[in-house]
Amino acid sequence: MDRERFEKQLAFIREIDKEKLIKRQSYLTDGETHEDDAQHAWHMAIMTLLLNEYSNTEIDVLKTISMLLIHDLVEVYAGDTYAYDEEGKKTQAEREAKAADKLYGILPPDQGENFKSLWLEFEAQETPEAKFARTMDCFQPLILNDAADGKAWKEHDVQRSWVMKRNQNTSKGSEDIWEYAREHLIEKNVRNGNIIDDSK
Amino acid sequence: MDRERFEKQLAFIREIDKEKLIKRQSYLTDGETHEDDAQHAWHMAIMTLLLNEYSNTEIDVLKTISMLLIHDLVEVYAGDTYAYDEEGKKTQAEREAKAADKLYGILPPDQGENFKSLWLEFEAQETPEAKFARTMDCFQPLILNDAADGKAWKEHDVQRSWVMKRNQNTSKGSEDIWEYAREHLIEKNVRNGNIIDDSK
Repeated sequence: MDRERFEKQLAFIREIDKEKLIKRQSYLTDGETHEDDAQHAWHMAIMTLLLNEYSNTEIDVLKTISMLLIHDLVEVYAGDTYAYDEEGKKTQAEREAKAADKLYGILPPDQGENFKSLWLEFEAQETPEAKFARTMDCFQPLILNDAADGKAWKEHDVQRSWVMKRNQNTSKGSEDIWEYAREHLIEKNVRNGNIIDDSK
Repeated sequence: MDRERFEKQLAFIREIDKEKLIKRQSYLTDGETHEDDAQHAWHMAIMTLLLNEYSNTEIDVLKTISMLLIHDLVEVYAGDTYAYDEEGKKTQAEREAKAADKLYGILPPDQGENFKSLWLEFEAQETPEAKFARTMDCFQPLILNDAADGKAWKEHDVQRSWVMKRNQNTSKGSEDIWEYAREHLIEKNVRNGNIIDDSK
C-alpha cells in the first residue's frame, strides 16, 4: 500500500462526510424532515438499479450510479442551490467550478481527475448516462414532494411553469418516466392545488 | 411501460425513503449529528469506488456497491441493531429475515429476488464482493468515530476486545485496509483512552 495515496483518499472520505449536513428544500415522505444531499444521492442510486430498464438508450449502470453518488459533492463548499432560486443560480456555475477544483484536488490525481470528469459529464448532459442521471435527479424530488402532499411546493408558491422548465430535460433520459411523472406527479398536483396553475 | 410493474417499483422507492430516518450510534465528523442508514450506505458506496484497489481479490464494483446500497434496508422494519448490543443481536437474524420478505415482496418478483439474494450474499460473507462490503461496513464507522474523537465509543464504554471482535473479518476483504485500521484507528484510540483497554 502506498501510504501517501491512501491518506489522500482518507482525507477526501472524511471531507465528503459534510455532504450529509447539506439540507435540501425537499421533505422526506414523513413530511417533516428535510432531505440532505447524501440521502438524495443514495436514493437515486437505488432508483437507477431498479429503473434503468426505462432509459431511452442502454446505459452503463455503474457509471450512472457513480455520477449520481458524486454529482452534488461540490455543494460541500458551494452550498445547495434550490431549483427555483433564480438569484442563486446566476453564480452557481462559478461557485461550483471553484469547489470542484478544491475538493477533487484532495484525491490522488488519477482519482481526482476521474471524479471531476464524471461531474463535468453530468453537467454537460450529452451522454446517455448523464441524461438518465438527470432524469433521476428531477424525478426523485417529484416523488418526495408528491408523497409529502406538496409541502415544499406550497411553502415556495411553486408554479406549474417552473416545474415544467425544471423538467425540460427529464424526457431525454427516459420518455416513459417523464410521461408518468408529468401526468401522475405534476399535473395531479396542479389539479389538487399543490402546484400553482399559471398556465391560464 | 408495464404500469403495474412500474407502480410496484415506485411503491418500493417510496417505502425505502424511511431508511433515511434510521439513526445509527455513530456521529458524523461534526461530532454532533447521528448518522443515518442512508448516509452510511452512500458514504460506503463512494469509498468502494475509491478503495476497491485494496481488495484482496478483484471485485465486481457494481455488485459490491449495489450490496452496500441495499444491505441495511431490512432495518426499515427491523430497526438498527447497534454493533455492541448483545441482547438485540440475539433476535436480529429472525427480525431481519421477516423484514426482508415483507420489503422485497413490494418489488416486481424478479427485482425482489435479485435484491434479496444480494442481501443474503452479503450476510453469508463468502464471495469477494461480500467480504469487501463487510470491510467497508466496519472501516467506515472507525473513520467516523476517530474523526469525532471517539464520542460514540466513550458514550458506550466500548472496550478494545469488542472492537477487535466486531472487526474479526475486516481483513478478509482487504489486508491492507485492516492493517491501517488496526494501527491508526483502533490502537491509536486505545492509547488515547477513547476505547477502553481490556487486554491487560
